[in-house]
This record gives sequence, structure tokens and C-alpha cells, in this order.
Amino acid sequence: MTDVEPLLAAADAARPAMRKASAATRADWLDAVADALDEARDELVPLAREETHLPEARLTGELGRTTFQARLFAEGLRTGELTPVRVDPEDPGWGMGPRPELRRTVVPIGPVLVFAAGNFPFAFSVFGGDTVSALAAGCPVVLKAHPGHPRLSRRTAGVVVDALRAAGAPDGAFGLIEGVEESITVLRDPRIRAAGFTGSTAGGRALFDIAASRPDPIPFYGELGSVNPVVVTPAGWAERGTAIAGEWVGSLTLGAGQFCTNPGVILVPDADAFVAAVEPPVPGRMLSESMERNLAARVDEVAALPAVHRAAQSEPNDQGVRTTVLAVSAPEVMADPRALDVEMFGPAGLVVGYSSQDELDAVLRLVPGQLTGTIQAHSTDDDPVARHVAGALEDRAGRIVYNAWPTGVTVSGAQHHGGPWPSTTAPTSTSVGLAAISRWQRPVTYQGAPASVLPPELR
Amino acid sequence: MTDVEPLLAAADAARPAMRKASAATRADWLDAVADALDEARDELVPLAREETHLPEARLTGELGRTTFQARLFAEGLRTGELTPVRVDPEDPGWGMGPRPELRRTVVPIGPVLVFAAGNFPFAFSVFGGDTVSALAAGCPVVLKAHPGHPRLSRRTAGVVVDALRAAGAPDGAFGLIEGVEESITVLRDPRIRAAGFTGSTAGGRALFDIAASRPDPIPFYGELGSVNPVVVTPAGWAERGTAIAGEWVGSLTLGAGQFCTNPGVILVPDADAFVAAVEPPVPGRMLSESMERNLAARVDEVAALPAVHRAAQSEPNDQGVRTTVLAVSAPEVMADPRALDVEMFGPAGLVVGYSSQDELDAVLRLVPGQLTGTIQAHSTDDDPVARHVAGALEDRAGRIVYNAWPTGVTVSGAQHHGGPWPSTTAPTSTSVGLAAISRWQRPVTYQGAPASVLPPELR
Repeated sequence: MTDVEPLLAAADAARPAMRKASAATRADWLDAVADALDEARDELVPLAREETHLPEARLTGELGRTTFQARLFAEGLRTGELTPVRVDPEDPGWGMGPRPELRRTVVPIGPVLVFAAGNFPFAFSVFGGDTVSALAAGCPVVLKAHPGHPRLSRRTAGVVVDALRAAGAPDGAFGLIEGVEESITVLRDPRIRAAGFTGSTAGGRALFDIAASRPDPIPFYGELGSVNPVVVTPAGWAERGTAIAGEWVGSLTLGAGQFCTNPGVILVPDADAFVAAVEPPVPGRMLSESMERNLAARVDEVAALPAVHRAAQSEPNDQGVRTTVLAVSAPEVMADPRALDVEMFGPAGLVVGYSSQDELDAVLRLVPGQLTGTIQAHSTDDDPVARHVAGALEDRAGRIVYNAWPTGVTVSGAQHHGGPWPSTTAPTSTSVGLAAISRWQRPVTYQGAPASVLPPELR
Repeated sequence: MTDVEPLLAAADAARPAMRKASAATRADWLDAVADALDEARDELVPLAREETHLPEARLTGELGRTTFQARLFAEGLRTGELTPVRVDPEDPGWGMGPRPELRRTVVPIGPVLVFAAGNFPFAFSVFGGDTVSALAAGCPVVLKAHPGHPRLSRRTAGVVVDALRAAGAPDGAFGLIEGVEESITVLRDPRIRAAGFTGSTAGGRALFDIAASRPDPIPFYGELGSVNPVVVTPAGWAERGTAIAGEWVGSLTLGAGQFCTNPGVILVPDADAFVAAVEPPVPGRMLSESMERNLAARVDEVAALPAVHRAAQSEPNDQGVRTTVLAVSAPEVMADPRALDVEMFGPAGLVVGYSSQDELDAVLRLVPGQLTGTIQAHSTDDDPVARHVAGALEDRAGRIVYNAWPTGVTVSGAQHHGGPWPSTTAPTSTSVGLAAISRWQRPVTYQGAPASVLPPELR
């Protein structure tokens, strides 16, 4: 096992300087890294291509998304949006007794551990959303590289470290580790004050349990699995059922289906007709052989459930992976809802046929917490079922997508990428969008302190 | 064991109506309960007096604080401050690709379990801050009564239930349970989506572990123990050391010392002179015999540590409880810092003498996470040490009190009552002040949905 102590010590030593750095200074750091990564594109993208088998256009776009995200956080720091302060003036007439002056700011929670994801080698990896939001908050970051793209991770980390140093950030602001054992040692270390994770429910749960069972438990922000249900309303079906089937397969197989927002379950009024309209394409190459094996195992698991049947499949790709469509009826899945809780990570989906609104409601009640829920309704905006379905989805998902598809998560202020367990371990927080920074910020209120004592942002 | 099933079923059944109730409607519910509690004052205060031994004036004041708090949340609901929405318009030119319209709201996290505290029979009990903020968020509340004031709890719950019903809130919006086993059954129930707790570190930790080990872990907001360090700077000491000693003992013995913000540790430049200036008063009667026994055990535990000595004590009160002041030097406590981690809940404090800023820094680094940290500095606002101490306290506490005392936590927008472990289980959240509502709110973002599908607040 590699010795993680020097890196932990450096992260801890970086704390005071990180806290003292102004929001504008931290913004400069993020911009510097974004510029350096853009400049290294011609080196990084081919590395990513070799290790992940993802197409060049996708990877170039993803790197662009990654640096855009960093610059968006930088902008939010400069405008003050990401460093909220609130002042309550002294009030001798306050209803519960005289109120002293209170000034609230946010401080970095401390060094954080971020686990990189495998399916976004840039946007959810070394300098992905968790890293960027934590650095924006002023937290030193220890990044656990994903084993799926080790050379890209090391090279990206090299660019990040060099750019941060050149921009004047303290040593220890960012460090890379590899290895599961190493990451668990770091997760248990008292100097680490929070952790972020994007990945499988099983892996995330194991790490959550470690974080929660520390002598000093820490927040663990895990973004885990989802089947991202799609509801096709009767009116939507009647108007454009065939088109919806085509769009669904497109979303389901985008990036070989390897997205946490992949629409893995679709509820339709006529399952047979829907399946007949589906033309499953030969999927792109998956990230790794272990992903291929895992997909096959999950598809077999769901297909083996009572009443689930294999409804359609594509020809295999060069690695033998096919796009697979399974099907089941609402009453059948109500009798055995396990199929609604298995994420078939990859180009595979389950069609659930419902024949009444009662059946639709009953199935939705059996779906556990989700990152997204999608409504495919009539295009006229007065579909009588759509509002009802939105309410049901809202009760279990973090984002409701209307007449569009859940894959593709834009980074912006109003974005929310989260949801109840098992989609995340922290249902009140988001891992995408500007609000992601609040996971790493701890409020502190100053009571009655003069300007000479206040931190600069509160003066 | 009492059957908690009917109450859980009612809370779960209340969910849809609670979600559909507008912010203004929920505000009306809170106001109705506040009015009813104020009207019941002459019945409730004597009950509280009998069960808690707290003085009438304190209890009357606390009930006033409690109803003020409910009305403040009601006002925040009406102004929109507590129901934040954010809209990002569609933007075809967005830097990472066309952005769809996103509208974010917050929805109730679901039924919550609240554990009442013993030391505030109104403000942190049946209709205390956790209950009020959860109801404000639209969450049904199951309230676990504190065994220290069972009759008051039942009577208060009766007033709450009647007032909610009369105001049109759904049945199941609020319910009372008693008993540890009962509360654990509720905490493990999948219908409960979050929990709040105010009490001891040991009790809170045990419940946190249950919440975290559920098949579906839920947020557990525990406000636990603190020693609330006070630093007297050399200049503050030179200017008004004797006055500070008197004020400290006043804060330390307020309410018989039974506050989570009790200033249990004070760092002073001259421990002997400080102790000589302290005149420990005979304490008021504590809440219960078990509190008396626990205080004696904790004082004995700290006094038995190497180099800690009993420096001053009062005459005993009728129950035999004395105000106790222990003392130790900074180098001694640096050699064995256990005394900094024991909350002597009651009228007891530890004086730590430091002889240099290095010693002061070293001791503060050994103090674990705290609700508050206090600075007693020179009155001229240009005390050279004060800013430095503020930075050290900010690193481990949620509220920095300047030339005042930490007991007495006002409820307002900029308040923060929280801190790193072990002062809480959730360092990014507060249990006092308007921001407490966000613990019970889950964001949901609508993407591209027409007005007919959006919830009213997003239209």
C-alpha cells in the first residue's frame, strides 16, 4: 500500500491558507486549472480515448463541459453567489428579547476526499464537479482516482497540481491517490472532514458505512444508482408513440448507456406496440470488460424474475454486448417489484405496460428514490395526466424532465442532481450545479464582533 | 410497548395533503398553534414548573420564545424566504451546450421523527424548533416526548393537535410518542425520512448509528454536547478580569448550567487570580435526580484527571448540588486533553491557565467541534489577539461570541446553532434560526415543464 500520510499532512497543512484565500483568489485558481486543461486537450483526449473507448467527440465535449463548469464556479465566487453572507442588525425590540448583531458566513468544512467516477473521465473524475465545488469552497481535495483510467487520472492530476501551484494555491490544495485500501485509510483519517462519491449503490453504501461509523462521523455525499423512470401518458402515446420509442432507445444507448440518468424503466400504455416500435441499435463499446460482465449479470438477474421477458435485442457489438429490452406488465411488477430496483448499467431497459392510472400509480409507488423522473406527454401542454404524474415523480425524484430525456445534465444555478435513497446518501444536496458547493461549506455566525475581528467578507 | 403503527400510518397518509398545502396555509397552521399555546400558558407553565423545577419567569419567557419562533417561521413562509425557488431560463448559447429551462423548488422530505430535549420543556420540546421547522417545511412530525416532563408533553401535544385540526391541517400532521423502544421502532420505519435530536453525545450517537444503518439511511440531525470554550485575551484580562470572572459564573450557572451553550471551559492568562475572583453561587435546582447524578459523575471524572484540581465550590443547594470550578494549566491539559472533551452538564466549569499565545493555540487545537466559542477581549475593539483567536475558534465552532456570553441563542435569520462533531452530527446545518428549515426540504428541479404541470410555486 502506498503511504498516504504525506498527502494527508499536506492537505491538512493547506487548511489555513485555503480558508484565508478570498473568493476571488479561489476563482483565479479554478480558472487557471481550466485554462491548463483546455491547453492539454490534445494530450488528454487521446489518453481518455485509449482507456475508456469513448468516442473522441464525446470526450472533447466532456472536457469542454468540465472546464466550463470550473469557470462557472469561478464566476459564482466572484459575484458572491457562492459565498452567502447574512447580517441581522442588533434589535433591542426583537420579540423574544433584545437581539445582538449576528453576521453569518460560510467556511470550508476542511479537507475532503473525492472518489472519481469511471463513466465521465473528465466531468466526474479528477477535476470533476466534486473537486471543483470543494476547491471553490476552499477545501483541500484528496482525489481517489478511478481504476478505469489511471494514466489519464495521473496526467490530469499533474496538470491540476502544476496549474494550482503556478496560480499560487498552497501545496496540498489537491492530491491524487490510487487504490481501494489507500482510499479507506484516507476516509477514516480524522483530518478528512467530508467525502464525495459517484458510483454504484453497493460501493457507495460500503463507503458511506465507513464514514458514518468513524469515531467522528463525517458527511458522505454519495450519488449512487437510479433506474430513472419514464412515464408515457396515454395522450402522449396516442399522439407520438413511435417517436417516443425511438427517442427512448436513443437516450438509453447514448454513451453505451453508461449514465447515472439512463432511462432504465419506461411505463407505457401498450407494451407490445411500444416494443414493436423499438429498434435497438448495436451499442458502442463499453468502458471496460468488468462493465460488460456486470451488465450481463444485471440483465440476467432482471430477466430471471417472474413474468419478465426479453422483448427485443440488437446484434452484438465487437465485444458481444447487445442492446437489450425487457418487458413486464404492471400487475406482474406490482406482484414482484424487484425489477424496479436493479440498475442495469449500460444499454438495457425495462418496458412496463400499464392499463389504468391506478396501475401507473401503484407501480410508481414501488419505485425507490431516483435522480430523475421523466414525463412523455401530449405536446399541447394540457395533457390531463401529466400534472398527476409529475406529483408522483416529485415524491421520489430530484429532477422532473418534461417531454425530453434525462441523459445530459446541464450545469447551472437551478440544476438539481440528487434524490432520496438509493439515488443518493444525502437527499437534501446536489452533486451537479452551483448548489453543490454548499456540501463543503459550514456556516459560522459572528455575534457582536467588531470589524477588526470579523473575517473580511463580513466586514 | 405502545403500538406506534397507527401514528406512523397517519403521518404517512398526511404526506400528500402536507405537500399540497401552500406556504401561506402552513403559516396559518403555525400561527394557530402559537396562539393556542399562548392561551394555554396558565395551564402549561405550572405543569412545566412541577416537572422541571425551573423558575416560573424562565418558563414563561421560554414559552414566549417558543410561540415567537413559530410565528417567525410563519412570517418566513409568507414572505417566501423559506420556500426558495430558482429559475434558469432556456439558453441556447449556454457554454456547455443549449440549456433547457430549469425551475427548482423544495419539497418536504417526508415524515420526520423529532426527539424532544429535557432542558427546554417548551423551546426544544413538543413544539420546539425542530417540530416547527419541520411543519413549516410541510413534513408530518412524530414527536418523541422527553421523559423528564411527560405530563407537560402530553398536554402540549393535545393543544398542538387540537389547534392543527381546527386550522385545517391533515390528521397525522403531528403525533406524540413516548418510550425509547417506541422511538427506535419509529426511527427504523421506512416511512420516516429524517430525524432531529437535541441531547447528549452518547444518546445522539446511538440514534445516529441506527439512522445510518437502516437499509435506507436517512439524515439524522443531532445537536449533541459542547464545552463552549471561552478565551480571555491578555488585554481583556488586564482591563476587566474580575468582571469577566463574575460574568462567566453567571453564564455558567444560568438555568443551573443546563444549556448546550454553557461556557464549560475558560482559558485565562492567570488561572489563580481568575479563580480567586470567582464567587460560585449556590445553584438552582436541576431538572432531575438523574441530571444531578450525571453532573457529579462528570465532575468526578474530570477532577480525577492528572493535574486537574478542584479550585472553588459553592455551598450545596437543597439537593446537595454545588457549583464547582476545576482548574488546570495549559501544559497539563496539552499532555492529557481528555478534560476538554467532557461536557459537565450543569453548574460546573474548567479554568485553563495559559501563559503564552503558543499555549493558547495548542489548547484550542485540542478542543473538538463546538456549538460556540467566545472571546473576552479588550473593550476598545483593537485587541491584537482577538482576530487571531477568532480564526482559531472559527475552525471548530459554529458561533463566535464577542464580549458577551454564549448562553441565550436568539432565533433569527443569521443565527447558526451547529458545529463539527461532536457538537452535531450534521456540521453544515443549524437547529436554531430560520435556516433550520432546510434540513427538512429536498430540492426538486423541473426541466422544460409547462405551467399546467408545474407546482403552483413554480408557475
